[in-house]
Amino acid sequence: MDIKNIIDKKSKNKELTKDEIEFFVDGYTNGAITDYQASALLMAIKIFGMTEKETFALTNAMLHSGEIIDLADIGMVVDKHSTGGVSDTTTLALAPICAEAGIKMLKLSGRGLGFTGGTIDKVESFKGYQVEIDMGKAKELTLKNGACVIAASKNLAPADKKLYALRDTTATVESLPLIASSIMSKKLASGADAIVLDVKYGNGAFMKTKKDAVQLAKLMVKIGENAGKKMDYIVDDMNEPLGYNIGNRLEAYEVIELLNGKKGKLRDVTLALCAKCIRLGLDISYEQAYQKAVDALDSKRALKRFKQMIADQGGDLELFKGLKLKPTLKIKATASGILNKIDCAELGRLVGLMGATRQKITDQIDYNVGVRTFHKLGDKIEKGDVVFEVFAKNKEQANEFAEKFLNCYHIV
Amino acid sequence: MDIKNIIDKKSKNKELTKDEIEFFVDGYTNGAITDYQASALLMAIKIFGMTEKETFALTNAMLHSGEIIDLADIGMVVDKHSTGGVSDTTTLALAPICAEAGIKMLKLSGRGLGFTGGTIDKVESFKGYQVEIDMGKAKELTLKNGACVIAASKNLAPADKKLYALRDTTATVESLPLIASSIMSKKLASGADAIVLDVKYGNGAFMKTKKDAVQLAKLMVKIGENAGKKMDYIVDDMNEPLGYNIGNRLEAYEVIELLNGKKGKLRDVTLALCAKCIRLGLDISYEQAYQKAVDALDSKRALKRFKQMIADQGGDLELFKGLKLKPTLKIKATASGILNKIDCAELGRLVGLMGATRQKITDQIDYNVGVRTFHKLGDKIEKGDVVFEVFAKNKEQANEFAEKFLNCYHIV
Repeated sequence: MDIKNIIDKKSKNKELTKDEIEFFVDGYTNGAITDYQASALLMAIKIFGMTEKETFALTNAMLHSGEIIDLADIGMVVDKHSTGGVSDTTTLALAPICAEAGIKMLKLSGRGLGFTGGTIDKVESFKGYQVEIDMGKAKELTLKNGACVIAASKNLAPADKKLYALRDTTATVESLPLIASSIMSKKLASGADAIVLDVKYGNGAFMKTKKDAVQLAKLMVKIGENAGKKMDYIVDDMNEPLGYNIGNRLEAYEVIELLNGKKGKLRDVTLALCAKCIRLGLDISYEQAYQKAVDALDSKRALKRFKQMIADQGGDLELFKGLKLKPTLKIKATASGILNKIDCAELGRLVGLMGATRQKITDQIDYNVGVRTFHKLGDKIEKGDVVFEVFAKNKEQANEFAEKFLNCYHIV
Repeated sequence: MDIKNIIDKKSKNKELTKDEIEFFVDGYTNGAITDYQASALLMAIKIFGMTEKETFALTNAMLHSGEIIDLADIGMVVDKHSTGGVSDTTTLALAPICAEAGIKMLKLSGRGLGFTGGTIDKVESFKGYQVEIDMGKAKELTLKNGACVIAASKNLAPADKKLYALRDTTATVESLPLIASSIMSKKLASGADAIVLDVKYGNGAFMKTKKDAVQLAKLMVKIGENAGKKMDYIVDDMNEPLGYNIGNRLEAYEVIELLNGKKGKLRDVTLALCAKCIRLGLDISYEQAYQKAVDALDSKRALKRFKQMIADQGGDLELFKGLKLKPTLKIKATASGILNKIDCAELGRLVGLMGATRQKITDQIDYNVGVRTFHKLGDKIEKGDVVFEVFAKNKEQANEFAEKFLNCYHIV
């Protein structure tokens, strides 16, 4: 086989065979195929798309490029995946709720990227929490607590990592089959038997419309089912932050508030995801599953379990006693009106720039920086109302970001 | 400007601006834009094509990436360009014929590549002929003899060289606007006022059909005219070698035979090209121009002038006294019938492999190797007729290639 012929074939909109796709993924992973050959092929794929057969083959080839985690010995395991949002702490709330309902969840999570925070950064704001523990210990903890959150192995689907880095610099990210196979290759390598997808759409998400989100979700469901997994999904509006807090410790605290009974959109989305996970894991109806989730949450059994999970991985429990952080600056509305639009991605990006996510791989995260918001879309705001509490490194930083935060709110 | 946005724009089939194309070409030439970004953009261009405006801008940007030769001081200069064929020696015959008709031609030629020979390799088979002379001396010789053939400067359109090398490994060669702008950027940098294009088609050419060849020719004419040049073209069948000889010294000898009055397709194509060049250069009718070319050829004035050109650049004149080479092997037809098809590119490739063209940049050319053929498509061949005279390095090489040459002829 010759990569030039494979590139040429795809550039003429002809379907590639499973063998050709494997040849490409293997060759690119081991360096026999160059970056510039891979990017030419990726561009042809971006433009012409991929058939389902091609997408399955690409996912499978990337999946087999690295470690595949075997969780068979701990029984039926359910996983949840979000395409990334702002103020999205559903993973940390969902894990203990599902565990309480009898589901096993060994969650391999990632760090913040771009405007989206990462579960691992958030859980690390419980000082001392160990995210890098070996798989034997993680399985033990999963059996003990029902759930365990650790950092994803660097060796899951390395082909996807290499391809994603290339796509990121060659304007070939935006392709449904490439996005779907990228996500699913890592998910399938993570060893769960059932996977629930949370696909975000809106100005704070990669997919801009609900239609696109549904299309991506359905494609990922097909890929998963083709690989023998039980699959389900929700799509979720990201035209505003999911919760009220943005920033690692602020978001970790919002999980505690949620598990303590706080109402709102974050709770609604979390319960919907829990119900889907529990339904797949226990093979019961959605309504039964939903009720189990509500019971686990409202009885505060999930809160107790969350505390146990944090403690068992070495995390400090101070945050369960309350948020001790004081805001550096309170930003007030300069006009009255309705909160008509939120630049959600920009809000996430600003908090990231303040230090909540790494801008370079060598950066140190500041777990304390962030903002607290108080309004959702459609809310009436009076001039002088506090709209943001800024938790900055210092006064200067808070002042520097103040106007930028205010510009994210369109009050009309 | 950001190359990612430019790639993305083209991947969505939107027209790039002149500035965006210049940003790409400049950035790629100076290394700010990577190979993998360039190949992604080239793939989008291959798939969606380019508008005329984009094609003009790309040509112009590549043209300005290196040296632009100024020939204004020697007056109206005509150039001819062939897209590359097998047994194509028209340049060496055409230069003295046009010169004799009063045209000035300072020909910057190239070396053999793939299955096609190069004018520079052919003219170097006149031992001692200097192809690397400075532009001042080349202009002097052009003024003296009317024509001068030298090697193209390595600094003509370097952006095109870099892009072509990339296209060659990423299956992005096959694109009309990329081919046209690649050729024309070098031609326009060569300084001529008028350019006649010889676009080949058939199994021994890059363009497979006459229709494609006409399309490419017309696009190049438009590019040239947009740059203020006088343009014309012919398209030319390359389903069989143009002359009878393939290999550097054998082809140089065929030029002498042609200038001595030998009839055939090589003469016909050469005269057609001469007529177009003379027409543009002297601003006369095609018929008048054709008659001037025939006069120059049949009077043997062109032969005399060719000899002078070779002598003035230090070339040995022995070949004018006759071909002293003896064939290593005569290959006879193993069946009778009509010569129905010739694998023309393969014939060229085989002669190249025997040593007529470099396979690696460091290879030494063997000027003497080659084959002489005796038939054209449609000719009747009897079993036992000599179909190839092989001029090899030795008997072993001749025997090694014998069957391969025979397989290029389909006699039915």
